[in-house]
Amino acid sequence: MKEIERAAEIAGAWAAVSPTTRAEVITKVADALDAAGPSLIEIADAETRLGTARLTGELARTTFQLRLLAAGSGSFYDVRIDRADPSWPPGPRPELRRYRTAVGPVLVFAASNFPFAFSVAGGDTASAWAAGCPVVVKAHPGHPELSRRTAAIIEEALGPWGAVFGLVEGEAVGVEALRHPAIAAAAFTGSVTGGLALARIAAERPVPIPFHGELGSVNPVIVLPGAARERAEELAAGYAGSLTLGNGQFCTNPGLVFAPSSGPFVDLVAERLREIPDAPFLNDRIESGFHAGAERLAGIPGMREVVPGPGARLLEIDLADFVPDVAEECFGPLGVVVRYSRLSDALPVLSALPGQLTTTVHALPEEASEVEALRPVLADRSGRILWGGWPTGVAVTAAMQHGGPFPATTSPASTSVGTAAVERFLRPVSYQDWPSDLLPEPLRDDNPWDVPQHFS
Amino acid sequence: MKEIERAAEIAGAWAAVSPTTRAEVITKVADALDAAGPSLIEIADAETRLGTARLTGELARTTFQLRLLAAGSGSFYDVRIDRADPSWPPGPRPELRRYRTAVGPVLVFAASNFPFAFSVAGGDTASAWAAGCPVVVKAHPGHPELSRRTAAIIEEALGPWGAVFGLVEGEAVGVEALRHPAIAAAAFTGSVTGGLALARIAAERPVPIPFHGELGSVNPVIVLPGAARERAEELAAGYAGSLTLGNGQFCTNPGLVFAPSSGPFVDLVAERLREIPDAPFLNDRIESGFHAGAERLAGIPGMREVVPGPGARLLEIDLADFVPDVAEECFGPLGVVVRYSRLSDALPVLSALPGQLTTTVHALPEEASEVEALRPVLADRSGRILWGGWPTGVAVTAAMQHGGPFPATTSPASTSVGTAAVERFLRPVSYQDWPSDLLPEPLRDDNPWDVPQHFS
Repeated sequence: MKEIERAAEIAGAWAAVSPTTRAEVITKVADALDAAGPSLIEIADAETRLGTARLTGELARTTFQLRLLAAGSGSFYDVRIDRADPSWPPGPRPELRRYRTAVGPVLVFAASNFPFAFSVAGGDTASAWAAGCPVVVKAHPGHPELSRRTAAIIEEALGPWGAVFGLVEGEAVGVEALRHPAIAAAAFTGSVTGGLALARIAAERPVPIPFHGELGSVNPVIVLPGAARERAEELAAGYAGSLTLGNGQFCTNPGLVFAPSSGPFVDLVAERLREIPDAPFLNDRIESGFHAGAERLAGIPGMREVVPGPGARLLEIDLADFVPDVAEECFGPLGVVVRYSRLSDALPVLSALPGQLTTTVHALPEEASEVEALRPVLADRSGRILWGGWPTGVAVTAAMQHGGPFPATTSPASTSVGTAAVERFLRPVSYQDWPSDLLPEPLRDDNPWDVPQHFS
Repeated sequence: MKEIERAAEIAGAWAAVSPTTRAEVITKVADALDAAGPSLIEIADAETRLGTARLTGELARTTFQLRLLAAGSGSFYDVRIDRADPSWPPGPRPELRRYRTAVGPVLVFAASNFPFAFSVAGGDTASAWAAGCPVVVKAHPGHPELSRRTAAIIEEALGPWGAVFGLVEGEAVGVEALRHPAIAAAAFTGSVTGGLALARIAAERPVPIPFHGELGSVNPVIVLPGAARERAEELAAGYAGSLTLGNGQFCTNPGLVFAPSSGPFVDLVAERLREIPDAPFLNDRIESGFHAGAERLAGIPGMREVVPGPGARLLEIDLADFVPDVAEECFGPLGVVVRYSRLSDALPVLSALPGQLTTTVHALPEEASEVEALRPVLADRSGRILWGGWPTGVAVTAAMQHGGPFPATTSPASTSVGTAAVERFLRPVSYQDWPSDLLPEPLRDDNPWDVPQHFS
């Protein structure tokens, strides 16, 4: 596959170039995408029905992300230098210098729901480039024209570095690319079914490779009794807004709520949801998948329809009737409220939930001790836990964790948003007693790239 | 499986306890093993034939490793704190605090060739404990009594923390343990065949888990023409010593050498090898595997026997006759010398080698420019690259990398030796807008555990 072959050819040079040069190249891409903004947004809107406002924000986030990741401090090199020590126990140690370097060409499977931020020039591409890896993107069929136009802009902006990017299309081609011997790692955002199938292909290659898949999550929200009582209006408005943001087509969409069995919260959410105008789905396949999933959930014994759609939907079920299927993701604006009498009764259900990207708690300050008891369970099951607020905002920062135990992701140690996302595409190498002038720059005592170095 | 169930029960407490307390507990284990040294070494020698001197050193290394990993600076928590910032582009960001915490109960598959350092109380156990994970070890059948005795000493030393350790035996039980839902990650040191089979079981669980397997490596050594000419005696002695250390039963054993087609190096190695007395194999299975592997290598067209055994063996082949099978690991004291006329002719072969734990270069200072051309290829294929020396010493330090691309390992981003080995058993969690007094200790502003914190 020519995109992969040229990526493999340039991989060494891209990994070896200074982070400053890499940042300059990546910044040119960001500038070119910003400059082409209006035309890109027009294509994106035509293909995804997401609307100009949302798409404008998403493109800004995308180019910000490219610049932020490219401008990293170099801490991801994780440079460790052991001085030689003849008295090291239990035996003399040599000089060892270890850093993390690019793993090689990365294959990115683009997502449908963020045509900029999780697609061709999205977070996976940005972090693989920042790590020093060339990227081949398998375009999402939900926005083919936008993918091609974005790719063309990228290639032009890359200039002589053009080979660090390639676009391929089609499911079979994507699988063929994943099996290509020159691909060293892959990243994916999408469904559990699709992600698992690709993860297994990656694991069954003659040379297995790391597969960083971000799959499914229902992002539980737990409303404590006091908060439900005293802040019902505000929480209902906030929840309805978060549930319907982007028509619910967010991986951090809060699809499952635990709320007290009495009180006005659920009725207020229902009221708000009825006020929100129906929004279009990304495409017909997602729309029909949503309706099928909603029917499956509605058919669970004990499930009651609160808001029946056809737009946003709300279901509720008593905690006593909870079965694992209640926590199945239904991609779109659908919330299931699990009503509990005592929060402690919900603990066994919460601890048995599948892995989640996020879990959100709403509590009054005086309910802190109950949250404290809950915290280890939530942290065990989720990549990010929120006190207040809603999970649909995912800031691109150093401390963001957008990941979690399976099926939230196939690689629980990684994040696909934030500066730590770069770490997915690195591999450590130690140099033992290597002549100092032949060392790669980050390992040299004169530290020409000015990266953090830890001596011991 | 009761060992796993009790590990799962104590996992939260072990992860939450301060690193100081954890270090105290782990140090007690190290002290108890040291105190029992003479009796353990006696059992080990009877079961492995490795000899008292080697086993005494290995036990010292093992208890040093337990203490070193337990006493870590806490940098592995990788604490990142984002202050809330309403002006953060492209939208206001909340307060986010991210750290890495224990992944949960870890299953360790012990190795045969290091009955202390890569077995019951070895590096995998030490690093999982230091990360805050309980450990269940699947004993290696090569040293069952030693495994049981080590386990008994560990359990007694752990006192009230006894549940953070369990020992299980038998291949079927090991597979059952790997499939147990409470196991969150696994580590393995052993053969490519065994490791790949287990890696696939880990990947095909209903909830796949990370599998850190350290499998096979032939640890190429490249002798440049000048070094071969001017330092032939010294290099031959060094190579023969490294090849036969522990009767060649080391994962870093240098089984493949690239040397010039003319010069006395190979004859000198042969001389040295003939002087080295035969040593016993760990067990009959490894011995017969060695002989079978040696016969396969000897049968490759163009392969010549230089030292035919029955102890250490040396084969040679011309570079022109090189086929991928030449680089198949033969576990034991067997070296294959690939003879080249021009070093540059060897480059395509070197770049196509399977992933390696180590690659070693022997060159004169004036041959630096040739090594410089070689370096990217070596770093691409290996976890550690050495200038001079021999790969069989693996220091336990901050900058050690004992890992590499497949099949050296199934997880190229990790190491199984050194302080970075702890990172295999961690998972990041972000806390968003969480009340400061309810945060886990590493994330608090008052930093009660005194771990490194990075603010942005």
